[in-house]
Amino acid sequence: MTIKLYDLVGEDKSKPFSPHCWKVKMAIAHKGLEFESVPTSFVDIDKMENGGFSTVPLIRHGKNLVHESFEIALYLRNSYPDVGDRLFHGEGGIALSRFVESWTLTQLHTWIAGWAILDIHNMLDDENKVYFRESREKRAGKTLEEFVSNREDSIPELVKILNAMNLMLKKQPFIGGRYPRYADYIVFGAFQWLRVVSGLHMIPKGTRMLEWLERMLDLHDGLGRSVPQANT
Amino acid sequence: MTIKLYDLVGEDKSKPFSPHCWKVKMAIAHKGLEFESVPTSFVDIDKMENGGFSTVPLIRHGKNLVHESFEIALYLRNSYPDVGDRLFHGEGGIALSRFVESWTLTQLHTWIAGWAILDIHNMLDDENKVYFRESREKRAGKTLEEFVSNREDSIPELVKILNAMNLMLKKQPFIGGRYPRYADYIVFGAFQWLRVVSGLHMIPKGTRMLEWLERMLDLHDGLGRSVPQANT
Repeated sequence: MTIKLYDLVGEDKSKPFSPHCWKVKMAIAHKGLEFESVPTSFVDIDKMENGGFSTVPLIRHGKNLVHESFEIALYLRNSYPDVGDRLFHGEGGIALSRFVESWTLTQLHTWIAGWAILDIHNMLDDENKVYFRESREKRAGKTLEEFVSNREDSIPELVKILNAMNLMLKKQPFIGGRYPRYADYIVFGAFQWLRVVSGLHMIPKGTRMLEWLERMLDLHDGLGRSVPQANT
Repeated sequence: MTIKLYDLVGEDKSKPFSPHCWKVKMAIAHKGLEFESVPTSFVDIDKMENGGFSTVPLIRHGKNLVHESFEIALYLRNSYPDVGDRLFHGEGGIALSRFVESWTLTQLHTWIAGWAILDIHNMLDDENKVYFRESREKRAGKTLEEFVSNREDSIPELVKILNAMNLMLKKQPFIGGRYPRYADYIVFGAFQWLRVVSGLHMIPKGTRMLEWLERMLDLHDGLGRSVPQANT
């Protein structure tokens, strides 16, 4: 039974960019399962499954509707305990993945949103551009152009954030240890978002983090690599 | 068989402050085991067990000598699989604790060292003061006083770092989930270091992180609370 995934896209439906949807796609592939994407723009989100949801990802799996990336990962784990590879590898792995998620959301996503917000806007069709600009400028209290005008100044902050990854990668090839686990997909989702929307040119070359990202892009027959890096 | 722990102290031997030693003390207590502290000053570190070590913690357990906090935690786990509570709760818990350790070292410890370096100096006896000032000023390229002169300016950065903890604590009471695990002791070690050396007055009141810290201080018959908070 194929999993139907509502996947956020811009004008070009072949370049899905939501970090949260990427986590789910990698988790589904990790379990060796199939998914069918339903390309969904920002303004279409509240029409998914007859309404009631304001964010992606959402999956439809037979009779089941599961919302939110971590919940979907737990659903896959619990529905397919004996299928594919383990997403968490123990109760401790689940709990600590919550820490990785919180770190990713508060540190990485905050940084990436600050860098990429105008690039995201530029990937959208006209109707979505209007929605995105209005909602984000209201939240930020400034224009998208003002928001990113000094974005180069924030690179040292990213380098500092990445130190946590680089130090860990001296000990093991993946956050999950010898093999990737859901925690890796959490962090991968963030960098895939940045990669598809803005590219990765701002990340210093030769870091362990970039080597890890290449390993992540190779996984599951190059699932992540199937969408090209932006050239902004 | 009691575990002998070489534990870093200043002039007042009743106030051990090393984050790495605190991780180990909490881990030993977590397993329901006993330890005996050997108060060790900075200049005594290279005399431990006839030399050969340049950092604490080091434990002597019968014939075994185990060095470095994470290695000691793994040693306790492997030596006492059926004693006390689990420190990691699965292979995933071990791997992800490495991420928590790397985050703690690169983000929290870096911040705390910048805040507390002069307070640490002031806790030492005269011989250790000379060693500490010379080695740290050489490394930093400035005096300890210069190092901390604008430390209040770094509080917003700490608040940002703590967002990762505060968001996670909306989901679960400990990094380890429903119960504390070694990952909690990794982060606790950092805040206990700050608490004993400089106090916690710079952390905004009413945050989930401080509530978590109170829970951590209550563990194991108030082991962490047995050393008072500094009043700097």
